[in-house]
Amino acid sequence: MRDSRVDAVVAEVREGVVPDQGEQATLERVVEDLLDRARTAVAELPVEADVVHVGSTARGTWTRGDRDIDVFVRFPPDLPRDRLEEFGLQVGHHVLPEGYEAFAEHPYVTGDYRGFGVDLVPCYRVEDATANRSAVDRTPFHDRYLGSHLNDRLRGDVRVCKAFLKGIGVYGSNLRTEGFSGYLTELLVLAFDGFQPLVEAAADWHPPVRLDPGGTDGDEGFDHPLVVVDPTDPDRNVAAVLSADNLARFQHYARDLLDDPRPELFAVTEPEPLTASAVRAHVERRASTPVAIRFATPSIVDDQLYPQLRKSLTGITGELDRRGFEVLRATHFSGEAETALFVECAVADLPAVERHKGPPVQVRDHATEFYEQYVDDPDVYGPYIDAGRYVVERERGFSSVRALLESDQLFNVSLGPDIADALRNGYEVAVGDDVAGLADPFGVELAQYFDPRP
Amino acid sequence: MRDSRVDAVVAEVREGVVPDQGEQATLERVVEDLLDRARTAVAELPVEADVVHVGSTARGTWTRGDRDIDVFVRFPPDLPRDRLEEFGLQVGHHVLPEGYEAFAEHPYVTGDYRGFGVDLVPCYRVEDATANRSAVDRTPFHDRYLGSHLNDRLRGDVRVCKAFLKGIGVYGSNLRTEGFSGYLTELLVLAFDGFQPLVEAAADWHPPVRLDPGGTDGDEGFDHPLVVVDPTDPDRNVAAVLSADNLARFQHYARDLLDDPRPELFAVTEPEPLTASAVRAHVERRASTPVAIRFATPSIVDDQLYPQLRKSLTGITGELDRRGFEVLRATHFSGEAETALFVECAVADLPAVERHKGPPVQVRDHATEFYEQYVDDPDVYGPYIDAGRYVVERERGFSSVRALLESDQLFNVSLGPDIADALRNGYEVAVGDDVAGLADPFGVELAQYFDPRP
Repeated sequence: MRDSRVDAVVAEVREGVVPDQGEQATLERVVEDLLDRARTAVAELPVEADVVHVGSTARGTWTRGDRDIDVFVRFPPDLPRDRLEEFGLQVGHHVLPEGYEAFAEHPYVTGDYRGFGVDLVPCYRVEDATANRSAVDRTPFHDRYLGSHLNDRLRGDVRVCKAFLKGIGVYGSNLRTEGFSGYLTELLVLAFDGFQPLVEAAADWHPPVRLDPGGTDGDEGFDHPLVVVDPTDPDRNVAAVLSADNLARFQHYARDLLDDPRPELFAVTEPEPLTASAVRAHVERRASTPVAIRFATPSIVDDQLYPQLRKSLTGITGELDRRGFEVLRATHFSGEAETALFVECAVADLPAVERHKGPPVQVRDHATEFYEQYVDDPDVYGPYIDAGRYVVERERGFSSVRALLESDQLFNVSLGPDIADALRNGYEVAVGDDVAGLADPFGVELAQYFDPRP
Repeated sequence: MRDSRVDAVVAEVREGVVPDQGEQATLERVVEDLLDRARTAVAELPVEADVVHVGSTARGTWTRGDRDIDVFVRFPPDLPRDRLEEFGLQVGHHVLPEGYEAFAEHPYVTGDYRGFGVDLVPCYRVEDATANRSAVDRTPFHDRYLGSHLNDRLRGDVRVCKAFLKGIGVYGSNLRTEGFSGYLTELLVLAFDGFQPLVEAAADWHPPVRLDPGGTDGDEGFDHPLVVVDPTDPDRNVAAVLSADNLARFQHYARDLLDDPRPELFAVTEPEPLTASAVRAHVERRASTPVAIRFATPSIVDDQLYPQLRKSLTGITGELDRRGFEVLRATHFSGEAETALFVECAVADLPAVERHKGPPVQVRDHATEFYEQYVDDPDVYGPYIDAGRYVVERERGFSSVRALLESDQLFNVSLGPDIADALRNGYEVAVGDDVAGLADPFGVELAQYFDPRP
């Protein structure tokens, strides 16, 4: 079943993603240095703690040029959380004097050190991964599991797989991407004993797919398109964040790779940004009514922002569909300063009246009530009888998409709370041709929108 | 439960609909004369036949000024059909020298005689109504049944009821009206022992409603909103032609009469015809896209024309809905020369592209086939992945309602055969404001359309 054309492409990609000996040696020296500095700082603390190098650079699965080093300081599980945070930051600032504080589950220090991006993170030294008190507590167990299961060949395949997932846009378990985490990639390559067997299997998957690489017979109750039971914590699905569409993308490109192996699939590419006039040409060709709600990007982290953008877009497209503007496609663009919810509608305007169906005439009480409510209303047409029911034609709530989006009704749909706040501070609605104004700063995103790929 | 206000209105209406003694006497003299003339002609025939006066003037249930007399010539059941038709016409032409031939189930002669409209119809003298060889054979049995069950009070109430049904537009069992026949009206008044008890009952009906006034325990298999088992032919539903909407109308106006008794409900009224500019004002106010397909009225009888108009309208509105033009309301107008199918759409134009959903990505064979069909097609956007499926945006078949209606696609929908023929001979499509051109000759119909009532 091995396809030598795939082999050749994988071999070529592997050349590019496995760090050379120089990069490897440099990394090892820098890590030693960081661990020493951290141990020195820990010695000053009034508690016992150890220092470990974790993550892809510790597992030997980082890809060439990836310069992230994660160092964890592990504290006793009985240390109060506020003390852990205090000590963690103290060590962090000692190790990374130029670093600054960031926040995941705990605050931690992140910064540059000798050309590497370093995170110095406190965690609890728990008995096993199931006893974790925060998500990061599991990481050392992942390292240990993979350290004892991966060999050099598989580490190379993990690197190839990461390049593939990055190339097709589904690498990263952050809530913006909803893709594959590094650990998930490692477990998948391990479970199928290599990258090529993995893509061959994935090409035929019928989600939901369940894998239990640790044979832990973990909890059955996951309701996700892909379930990979964590060998170090059987109650956890390592693929919980992966969206169904990203899994479908992985399947699509797995087939594409097998069908037409080529290194381009492993390379991150970005289209040329569209100009405003190119956007106008697309709008004219499609003869649709794109609308954009433009507002200042709220100051929240991506893991909060993107779920809220998706939720807001679902709320708004649902409202537009319910009100008859028929959504063709929708997306969101978000940059440092500005964010846009972009919805392509079938029409800009609808009739001034809409049908409003009443009860069946035969249901006397309800029918009479409905009839009497409208019979003397000069603003409705009807009531008349259609298909056994009273019907009136009454004024449509919103007969233009602009009027709807510029009204307070926008705030009656389900929006993310920070998006709602941002909109309350002001927003602009662009309709039709005017969305061409989005070409700066969203020319690349518009190019992707108007040339959509899997 | 008797409402004296209803009593008063009914009494007033009865005054107007019961023929006076002069009208009654004239009718009787003319009927005697007609029967004599028919018997003379029958005596010349080589077969036995008898002559009977039938229908509402025979039953004493005609309304004042109604000048229709039906005379049947009954032939032996073993007479071949062609002989029956020949003899029938021979008698008809003798009785009505100025008459002309018309055609229902048999050919018959119809004409004016001393100011009355007379139908001279051949039928078979069958044993009982269930043995009928054509629909008209039943009529003498209906007369006999009603003759032995109706008294003067009920005959008056039948006349009131007919006036009511005419006033609200649901009298007549022809296929244009799909309303209440005279015989159905008589049976209903008889079953409820009067007009007022009938409307009180009807106001509370929950269709389907089943009545068996003859207690014949007739066939249960009728699938109609109102079933009235024919006492003379238990396999027949006398209300088979009545549409669900006309039954709902009867219920509506029954309640209206009980709630606010007034003689106007018993009077046929017609609105002032709309002018072209009034039509344009409505179109502007409604901001919709009315369309009309105008063509020469086919030369077929109403009982063929109207079912075909309804069928064609259903076919066309279904097609418009499927193609995204969203039908608000539709109707048909038909005059001597011209007919129009009138459909009010939400929009005149739609985007040039439409979504076309492919199979779920996980269904490998179908998914790959779909993907490969479109991936190199320069005219589609996509394929991309949405909700686990491949989707493309391809050129919409018809992006304007006019283009659709002017195309051959019109003939791919389910049309009545004579309507399709008429359209093949040529038609015009009016869109938007241009439907104002229908004001002549359909001003009254447009007035009804833009002021719809139950």
